[in-house]
Amino acid sequence: MLIGVTMGDSSGVGPEILLKACRSGEIRRPVVVYGDFAILEYCNELLGYAVPLRRSAGVNDLHEGFLNVVDLGILLKEDLAIGQVSKKSGLAARECVIAATRAALRGEIAAIVTLPMNKGATQLSDPAFSGHTELIARLCGVSDFAMMLATEGLAVTHVSTHLPLAEAIKQVKRERIVMVIDLTHDALRRFREKPRIAVAGLNPHAGEGGLFGEEEEREIKPAIEMAKSKGLDVTGPVPPDTVFYMAARQKRFDAVVSMYHDQGHIPMKLLDFEGGVNITLGLPIVRTSVDHGTAFDIAYKGTASTRSFVNALKFAEKLAGGD
Amino acid sequence: MLIGVTMGDSSGVGPEILLKACRSGEIRRPVVVYGDFAILEYCNELLGYAVPLRRSAGVNDLHEGFLNVVDLGILLKEDLAIGQVSKKSGLAARECVIAATRAALRGEIAAIVTLPMNKGATQLSDPAFSGHTELIARLCGVSDFAMMLATEGLAVTHVSTHLPLAEAIKQVKRERIVMVIDLTHDALRRFREKPRIAVAGLNPHAGEGGLFGEEEEREIKPAIEMAKSKGLDVTGPVPPDTVFYMAARQKRFDAVVSMYHDQGHIPMKLLDFEGGVNITLGLPIVRTSVDHGTAFDIAYKGTASTRSFVNALKFAEKLAGGD
Repeated sequence: MLIGVTMGDSSGVGPEILLKACRSGEIRRPVVVYGDFAILEYCNELLGYAVPLRRSAGVNDLHEGFLNVVDLGILLKEDLAIGQVSKKSGLAARECVIAATRAALRGEIAAIVTLPMNKGATQLSDPAFSGHTELIARLCGVSDFAMMLATEGLAVTHVSTHLPLAEAIKQVKRERIVMVIDLTHDALRRFREKPRIAVAGLNPHAGEGGLFGEEEEREIKPAIEMAKSKGLDVTGPVPPDTVFYMAARQKRFDAVVSMYHDQGHIPMKLLDFEGGVNITLGLPIVRTSVDHGTAFDIAYKGTASTRSFVNALKFAEKLAGGD
Repeated sequence: MLIGVTMGDSSGVGPEILLKACRSGEIRRPVVVYGDFAILEYCNELLGYAVPLRRSAGVNDLHEGFLNVVDLGILLKEDLAIGQVSKKSGLAARECVIAATRAALRGEIAAIVTLPMNKGATQLSDPAFSGHTELIARLCGVSDFAMMLATEGLAVTHVSTHLPLAEAIKQVKRERIVMVIDLTHDALRRFREKPRIAVAGLNPHAGEGGLFGEEEEREIKPAIEMAKSKGLDVTGPVPPDTVFYMAARQKRFDAVVSMYHDQGHIPMKLLDFEGGVNITLGLPIVRTSVDHGTAFDIAYKGTASTRSFVNALKFAEKLAGGD
């Protein structure tokens, strides 16, 4: 099984995380990198990592003992702008993602693992760029997708993500909830026979029987009933302040469907701040990502944690059917 | 320092938690109980606890070596309806709270610690009863109060609590936020010289500069500036998915001001499900409470955890000026 890795924005922590993980032996399966060879070579030099790199012509040209890089050839050593928003770097990061996604769609790689892009940098050359995940979804011809955050013991999916909370509440609709339950179930089924899914309520105490909000009765319960009628193991709506305890501490659920960004992100970041993996569900390809940004403030210092990246590789393998 | 304890609804876990904590030596300071002697005596008998009980005429009639009970004399042994909603028990629970609050207002006790009531049971005799905290606030003549949830290492306060999320968003107003920051600061100052307070954002990434919502710019930032101008150590708005990690794991803050119920409750329940303490801020008296309900399903089995109650006693002492 071959995994494709995108280098991310060269101004940030992507290149060093890739090389650091490689150097420390944390990359245990074959990978092919989509990125700029000159940048990785320079990063190697700056940090004294000495990771053996080679230019690869593609997935049929891989040599063991090297980090094989499909060189996009956009950035030169002189283009490196450590910690800075750079138009050229933003453009290059976008091209890496396009190349990797296309390779995955052609079936050349089993999954893609992405290192962080910088939205502002990419928008300098592509003003319509709305996000890393949105770009991949568009290349895949998909409009319905959902974000899963995962750690070793727990996965959380989201009915909505980057919206004002007042708007997110309006997305709590039964069709959307059913879709996210289905996507959650499909993803988990790849490594667990009968995934146990909990659905969180939206309101305090999951509405307490309509006393603190109607969404549970009107939208969430019908969605759960629909999912159950398809034979899925779904519980809820569970009070939001209890469901993560039940899942993470009592191990009663494998995944929690959250109604909005922070409902899922607050507990996951508390459980594992550095090790979380961001997984895009609903695509025809497997895509996982680190769950952090470009971290310009610490770039090229060699201090960035590789944990999220290494876990993203592991989840990519699992989702692509590896053991 | 003398602490008053209310027995709570006799149908639930209040009486046994009180006796269990007493028996195991977890109550280390003098307390006086407001409750029904007959129920505590029967609970003692049912669970074989043999806690030495005595009827007390009030705070000037306390004997060491006994659990001193100011007997409300409402319930008899025959009235006990274990695990059931009972009109008489709901009425008695309300009377305990009234007696204890009045004693605190008269300065006879330094603080009150409340065991759980059942809202439905009390409403059978008092249809206007809207909640335990609201009753105490009304007896104290207070309308502005806030809920703090506390564990050993972290306190979280809430701009609103039991409201539908859509309504809670509308409560995110600068005056209310300033009030909650002030109440948080006043409470923490009783046991820490210069409390470090973080204020959470409302929206994902704290709005990301207005991209995902305006409340941070319009309401939260001005509130923080107002608090800072009074010399308070206040940071924010901090992204909601990061602030609890910074406070609980990195120990960078003593308290987090949360914008709504679950924003604060999700992390606190994950950090310490059984040991959390509910503290009412803004009252002229000190009042802490267990952070759980009557748990009718496990009442009189002797299995209920005393942790929240014991911590509520500790916080009551600290807030009342004990060491």
